[in-house]
Amino acid sequence: MKEHVGKRGGLIGELSAEFAGTMILILFGCGVVAQVVAGGLGDHDSIAWAWGLGVTLGVYVAARLSGAHINPAVTLSFALFRGFEWRKVLPYVLAQTAGAFVAALLVRWNYTEVLAKADPGHTYKTQIVFSTLPGNGTLPVSEWGALRDQIIGTAILVLVLFALTDLLNSPPGANLGPLLIGLLIVAIGMAWGTDAGYAINPARDFGPRLASFITGYHGAWRDQYGNLYFWVPIVGPLIGGPLGAALYKFFIGKYLPAGEQEIGRIPEPVK
Amino acid sequence: MKEHVGKRGGLIGELSAEFAGTMILILFGCGVVAQVVAGGLGDHDSIAWAWGLGVTLGVYVAARLSGAHINPAVTLSFALFRGFEWRKVLPYVLAQTAGAFVAALLVRWNYTEVLAKADPGHTYKTQIVFSTLPGNGTLPVSEWGALRDQIIGTAILVLVLFALTDLLNSPPGANLGPLLIGLLIVAIGMAWGTDAGYAINPARDFGPRLASFITGYHGAWRDQYGNLYFWVPIVGPLIGGPLGAALYKFFIGKYLPAGEQEIGRIPEPVK
Amino acid sequence: MKEHVGKRGGLIGELSAEFAGTMILILFGCGVVAQVVAGGLGDHDSIAWAWGLGVTLGVYVAARLSGAHINPAVTLSFALFRGFEWRKVLPYVLAQTAGAFVAALLVRWNYTEVLAKADPGHTYKTQIVFSTLPGNGTLPVSEWGALRDQIIGTAILVLVLFALTDLLNSPPGANLGPLLIGLLIVAIGMAWGTDAGYAINPARDFGPRLASFITGYHGAWRDQYGNLYFWVPIVGPLIGGPLGAALYKFFIGKYLPAGEQEIGRIPEPVK
Amino acid sequence: MKEHVGKRGGLIGELSAEFAGTMILILFGCGVVAQVVAGGLGDHDSIAWAWGLGVTLGVYVAARLSGAHINPAVTLSFALFRGFEWRKVLPYVLAQTAGAFVAALLVRWNYTEVLAKADPGHTYKTQIVFSTLPGNGTLPVSEWGALRDQIIGTAILVLVLFALTDLLNSPPGANLGPLLIGLLIVAIGMAWGTDAGYAINPARDFGPRLASFITGYHGAWRDQYGNLYFWVPIVGPLIGGPLGAALYKFFIGKYLPAGEQEIGRIPEPVK
Repeated sequence: MKEHVGKRGGLIGELSAEFAGTMILILFGCGVVAQVVAGGLGDHDSIAWAWGLGVTLGVYVAARLSGAHINPAVTLSFALFRGFEWRKVLPYVLAQTAGAFVAALLVRWNYTEVLAKADPGHTYKTQIVFSTLPGNGTLPVSEWGALRDQIIGTAILVLVLFALTDLLNSPPGANLGPLLIGLLIVAIGMAWGTDAGYAINPARDFGPRLASFITGYHGAWRDQYGNLYFWVPIVGPLIGGPLGAALYKFFIGKYLPAGEQEIGRIPEPVK
Repeated sequence: MKEHVGKRGGLIGELSAEFAGTMILILFGCGVVAQVVAGGLGDHDSIAWAWGLGVTLGVYVAARLSGAHINPAVTLSFALFRGFEWRKVLPYVLAQTAGAFVAALLVRWNYTEVLAKADPGHTYKTQIVFSTLPGNGTLPVSEWGALRDQIIGTAILVLVLFALTDLLNSPPGANLGPLLIGLLIVAIGMAWGTDAGYAINPARDFGPRLASFITGYHGAWRDQYGNLYFWVPIVGPLIGGPLGAALYKFFIGKYLPAGEQEIGRIPEPVK
Repeated sequence: MKEHVGKRGGLIGELSAEFAGTMILILFGCGVVAQVVAGGLGDHDSIAWAWGLGVTLGVYVAARLSGAHINPAVTLSFALFRGFEWRKVLPYVLAQTAGAFVAALLVRWNYTEVLAKADPGHTYKTQIVFSTLPGNGTLPVSEWGALRDQIIGTAILVLVLFALTDLLNSPPGANLGPLLIGLLIVAIGMAWGTDAGYAINPARDFGPRLASFITGYHGAWRDQYGNLYFWVPIVGPLIGGPLGAALYKFFIGKYLPAGEQEIGRIPEPVK
Repeated sequence: MKEHVGKRGGLIGELSAEFAGTMILILFGCGVVAQVVAGGLGDHDSIAWAWGLGVTLGVYVAARLSGAHINPAVTLSFALFRGFEWRKVLPYVLAQTAGAFVAALLVRWNYTEVLAKADPGHTYKTQIVFSTLPGNGTLPVSEWGALRDQIIGTAILVLVLFALTDLLNSPPGANLGPLLIGLLIVAIGMAWGTDAGYAINPARDFGPRLASFITGYHGAWRDQYGNLYFWVPIVGPLIGGPLGAALYKFFIGKYLPAGEQEIGRIPEPVK
């Protein structure tokens, strides 16, 4: 999740990497929810771990070519706060969403039999394999509560992500940033997944939602109350991400030695 | 959790970092207990992992500016045993407590609906989301048993923390100390959380306790027996922390080559 | 899982390492399933973690001498896409299968009593300790569904493995690749284990299947429907592995600076 | 778990480190079993993780001064295969056992109330908090089955440990060996803990067994069948450890470039 690193392959290479990285993320993310909800193997801990490891592995796949944003809220935050080129924002977002869409189709295909057995009507009971619902479909959370949750959750994500990738701060070495970024997602899944299923990523939610809709999930755009819901995990993260980036700058970034973020500078040794 | 590293931003920068780092810790820590206890997602393993990862991530956020104590017991131990300036101790402690307080308010707000559903009277049943109780509110442990537990638990924390951050010993490299420090908290949560809920950090307990009190938890200062309890997770860690630091010096530190801790010296290669 | 590193011990040393590395993998892999299924200790999370850690540890054992393929699908992919010598492919595969066979005999011996108690007839109920079944013996997945699953699962394995070991991409440093490779297996176990028990490795499945057959599991070659099944976790991975390698090349490899993979070149620093 | 590194503090410093490192291991190890069995918090996964993390943390505490054997079976294997001085073997073993004994007393004291509530008679039901039993007290495993298990389990431990610490092989870098060694223990706990509770360390078993005996566990020396059992987790590991070291030499070590192990040599870069 660094920027400015992927010019080697040109924009096509960057988009290919964003596609592949987000695809890997969703192959693990939607995969684990299918395994737990429809296959009965594992529990909420598995869900938190496999989503987090999916991020780690997706970032390793894409990091050199594109910087591995694999999340439109991250791309937007980098454009606003770290000089990522605006002209690339929309292409990145489309590549991320396409990767998530294709991965969700693969999960849908591979788990055809177990999904059909667990939920023959393809209702919101297994909708949750693909996209999020307020209160995960069972707890009394409204769409406004879910929007609040998505803003806060994505702000936490981006605040810590900026800390983990700012060379002026003290990021992990030995190219293990992707591991720590994945552990950040594990922790968010364990602590901030109750109200809205921690989408915290518009591509992660919209791509698989579309994939489920065209393969038999007719209620995909609505929540368990019948309200249109698909916009919440898009709007919430796009507000929360830049908010988290601003909070990082306010609490930490502005006190670091250089006024501007200089990505690529090695931090001075601790004295 | 190193000292003397944060003069770049001045004391304000250091306090801002302690605030933000402790805030991140509590966003994950109180968040996961809310998710498990009120949301029904996850189990005690999630609680141990998310508290530990919360420490790891909070330390990465704050490390360069303030050294990332994010715990008054650690600040006191560094003042007594590693030359941390006494004049900064109280400001650090206040910043840590304020960060924990704000984070707990955010958790309280985000989980309003599920807390109200799981525990409409806001009793000690969900008090545990915010602050600790003897025997976690259910086991037959007295306040004195809990005090004993907090002294031992914090002594273990600081003994191992001093080992993990002493450059004369053999600490982890590649700036992965924060990961190992988080794993230390995971292990304490799994093995030393029965008697008193492993506060091992006065700011972690007092800040959220205050936040719960002003938002409807009227019994916040007392335990399930009706005794005043809030002082136990303050006094215990402040005794246990320096005890652990002294034990580290007694068992390990005094045998290391230099008589004084020289933070910043690279250890000689193993021959 | 690098190639061309093991010439020091000659081919015999390489095969010895492949034997030992795969043996370690299966000692943990079949061991954990025996512990959960027959011993009643642990759950599906333990299974995912111990298989993954078994891969990590097996790779550390074998890495310097043989490159630690410990999987015929990986060996085949390296021969097709990274210049691994074809004359070594069959010897490697035989050494891997022999290591898995011996390890499974040790598990069979050590868990004699608990296997006999949990499943006196040595049926497919504990067959799963040693080798895989469609839908893990209980879910309605056919052999064709399992074949599809094994192709996809092994393609994911090899795509990400190629990313994690390609020095032109951004692999983990400090020789921690084996840790990340193990976490990849953890994630596959959590997300891609429903339809066919994630063999994703012909040696891992065939060696223990043979060991179970000669020690009392007379139905070892067939699935719960009575169909010959042993070929699925051989054929699926041998198709899926090269497919994943090709997808890595298509999405990522071809955009990296050098046209050919040059293993051993240090990547240029990120600018 | 390296040798020859701790001469700085003299033998007293080495023994102090072995005492402290083993104490930390047992504070987490016996602590987690008390928390799960008597406190009802956590499950077998917690037990596996906290024992493993206890090893990681104990090794970081002791590594520079003593090499952090913290296990008589490891000390014996280093004396037989890596030139550790024989005159130090008995002192190391005594220090390890004393550290385990003191740690178990602390666990016994801290968990007094919950142990008394869960098992008022202090029977073998909570004996397992401190020391191991065949089949963990419930499965039909004899003392001979447990001996077999302890030999195999400790052989796996030492074989992989030798791989992870042999600089001629490909060990983890950035001083993260202790993390991987802990993950090795996690995996053993998940896969090799059914038949005899994975003592794989005579000091870990005997010290706490003695501590439980003098604090009210009158049946501490016998198993659930009434047979003398305490010798099994001493003899088994002392046989299995050297066996694993020999297997490492047979499968891997003898093919590495130098005929003798030369600890301290940096391995040549992979070509």
